[in-house]
Amino acid sequence: MGKPSIQPRTLKGFRDFLPEAMIPRERLMEIARRVYRSYGFSPIDTPALEYLEVLRGKGSDETDKQLYQFEDSGGRSVGMRFDLTVPLARFVAQHIGDLGTPFKRYHIATVWRGENTQRGRYREFMQCDFDTIGTLSPAADAETAIVIHDLLREIGFEKFTIHINNRLVLSGFLEKLGLENQANEVLRGLDKLVKIGPDRVIDEIQQTAHATMQQARQLVALADLQGSNDQILAQLHNLVAGNNRGEEGVQRLADLLANVTAGGVAKERLKLDPSIARGLDYYTGTVYETVLDDLPAIGSVASGGRYDSLAELYTNQQLPGVGASLGLDRLLAAMQELGMIQTTRTPAEVFVPYFDAQRLGDYLLLASQVRASGFGVEVFPEPKKLGKQLQYADRRGFRAALIAGPDELDNDQCQVKDLSKGTSTTVPLDNQAAAIITELRRFVAF
Amino acid sequence: MGKPSIQPRTLKGFRDFLPEAMIPRERLMEIARRVYRSYGFSPIDTPALEYLEVLRGKGSDETDKQLYQFEDSGGRSVGMRFDLTVPLARFVAQHIGDLGTPFKRYHIATVWRGENTQRGRYREFMQCDFDTIGTLSPAADAETAIVIHDLLREIGFEKFTIHINNRLVLSGFLEKLGLENQANEVLRGLDKLVKIGPDRVIDEIQQTAHATMQQARQLVALADLQGSNDQILAQLHNLVAGNNRGEEGVQRLADLLANVTAGGVAKERLKLDPSIARGLDYYTGTVYETVLDDLPAIGSVASGGRYDSLAELYTNQQLPGVGASLGLDRLLAAMQELGMIQTTRTPAEVFVPYFDAQRLGDYLLLASQVRASGFGVEVFPEPKKLGKQLQYADRRGFRAALIAGPDELDNDQCQVKDLSKGTSTTVPLDNQAAAIITELRRFVAF
Repeated sequence: MGKPSIQPRTLKGFRDFLPEAMIPRERLMEIARRVYRSYGFSPIDTPALEYLEVLRGKGSDETDKQLYQFEDSGGRSVGMRFDLTVPLARFVAQHIGDLGTPFKRYHIATVWRGENTQRGRYREFMQCDFDTIGTLSPAADAETAIVIHDLLREIGFEKFTIHINNRLVLSGFLEKLGLENQANEVLRGLDKLVKIGPDRVIDEIQQTAHATMQQARQLVALADLQGSNDQILAQLHNLVAGNNRGEEGVQRLADLLANVTAGGVAKERLKLDPSIARGLDYYTGTVYETVLDDLPAIGSVASGGRYDSLAELYTNQQLPGVGASLGLDRLLAAMQELGMIQTTRTPAEVFVPYFDAQRLGDYLLLASQVRASGFGVEVFPEPKKLGKQLQYADRRGFRAALIAGPDELDNDQCQVKDLSKGTSTTVPLDNQAAAIITELRRFVAF
Repeated sequence: MGKPSIQPRTLKGFRDFLPEAMIPRERLMEIARRVYRSYGFSPIDTPALEYLEVLRGKGSDETDKQLYQFEDSGGRSVGMRFDLTVPLARFVAQHIGDLGTPFKRYHIATVWRGENTQRGRYREFMQCDFDTIGTLSPAADAETAIVIHDLLREIGFEKFTIHINNRLVLSGFLEKLGLENQANEVLRGLDKLVKIGPDRVIDEIQQTAHATMQQARQLVALADLQGSNDQILAQLHNLVAGNNRGEEGVQRLADLLANVTAGGVAKERLKLDPSIARGLDYYTGTVYETVLDDLPAIGSVASGGRYDSLAELYTNQQLPGVGASLGLDRLLAAMQELGMIQTTRTPAEVFVPYFDAQRLGDYLLLASQVRASGFGVEVFPEPKKLGKQLQYADRRGFRAALIAGPDELDNDQCQVKDLSKGTSTTVPLDNQAAAIITELRRFVAF
């Protein structure tokens, strides 16, 4: 045989997902789909490739540099989607007549960015977004937080905090200070609070936003408020007093906390956090970030916010909305670190060694009977030595084996083996494998 | 407001999936995942973009013309995957040491081909493949047919036939006739049997494969055998008698039928069909095609076969395998045509109108209690007139509404409305919404 002619390799920044990585990943996506649906969010999908002008929008140079773009064989300039928000805007503008409002959708799909991989970034990753489009109602803001809460609970997290803010508070305060035209400079400064500390932020805001020392101090004080949610609300109220926009923001935060708590979320899981802003241009109202209490350093695992106008580049219709996105890669990394992922290379629980070559049909039937009760069952395809087959089962991580050699089959019996303990019980091989299923249920959960 | 600057549109051959299309599509993919897993097939994923040389393999001009290919910003020649088989070959060659054999995987993912859209083809579509790699055992061939059977049953089809053949039969017969070097020409001719009829195929085979009239007739007779599986087996046996390869093929077909039936598949669902070949180069043993009895014209909805060597371009290791692929688009079109798809634009069953603006928290709590029992529940976000909200519920296809106005809430009551019948029942709004859940269970299945 000659040397194979092509080296099997993947592109830098792109990943293969082997079963042990893909099994928990798929489980996570399934939980997300289930939770989204349980609130009436519908799935949609859009093409991976779009007209370049659609993707670019009013995009920045940064976006443009990261876009995978080319000319297709029909001479069209096309690009691969780099997020799910731009496709959503295009989609909603195109179909809103059909869809009607409010329109609640989720979209779990791959996006591509030509990122610098030296920063540990991937060039291909999944996004997992949900949004409610076409309503300004605070009910949708409250629901967004409740959905984030349910997602994390269903995944298995108990210790997490949803940080909430409203962009109107800072906008109102800037208006009150007469700094409304320097909002971007102020936000950029406040964003560095954790990294460089209050003193240097105060310096920076004075320089870039042309604020006075006192204004800069007040802005940092606002972003750095500490205490209970009620204490922070009271302080925010004082800071913005007299400015309509700011007062509305504080009122909306108070309502949001009340509604989310009324909807069943424990008070301790919600944290009013005036420091979060999430992006300069996009969000205009509520913003959300979600921190795992045991791993705050990995950053937010579910983030989002309210925006005034989703699709203004593609339609004249005003389409406000609110939504958030689950950070799949971060969540999986966190679950790994917190020992929440059972390492397994099989999605099935039960293993059937095949060792009487003449009786394949018997093994296939046994597997099919046990499968009908809800267990996943794999039959080893080759009548090798039992030890070899059990080694395979062990490497894959099966929980149980159903061992039926020629003698057992002749006597209508089967050994049910608990592979983690190494113990086994012999049970009758009766109609529909009922005794086997009963025995399996004693130690295999599914 | 100015005119929006960008026309919202998709590329030719690419599709948006709106909720009413995406809900059944996701349901189908979920069934596929569940069935695959229940046999021990593990999920994997591979990048959408690969090195062009990996994708091209020994590819034909036809493949090359359809490939979306470009140079990335790092100057690499890359392409978008056009199937899941080439990525599987590359993946297995690269990771087989980690994976071990037998390796059973499924892969549900998008692929891209620059097809001629005039033939009604899409340029972006999903494939849904499962394969068992690294074993020559007939157990894996039997299991493949059983998996196809379970997939179709779980989707809801009762009337379908899995057509089975083995490429060794024809290869052996060609060897017996001394025509083994004209296999491709013969296969190309036999492929046209349905379209142009036996006489013209006999002419063609004489010309292209340099067969005698009698040989051509015998080949057409083999491909055109009619009768029960047992009758066809007997006739095949006679035709190939004396040729080892052909006899082995017939024996394998007989074993396959016996094993698949033993594994629980009704005899009538299996059809030995010597006319199917499925591709010239790739398959070497068993081949499968699956026909819906009510819609034979749409072609096979689940097809596959056994191959000797999956990854020879990328590794020296011999990796035989067997697998098949579910045709999602065809299945969905068939389900549509057969009235198997309920049109709905919501994945949730229960609708909660919100009409006392002051009591959003009450509605959110009610929804959360009912959701905890397994129902999907959507709360309308705006306190509009009840009629408007029920119109929305109707358009979306909800099954039930929980109506609680101010009076009802004050009296701890709630109307449970069956939206298809228009009837409603008033029940107490008790702890955990128990009475509501009981009432919903009377008419809403989930």
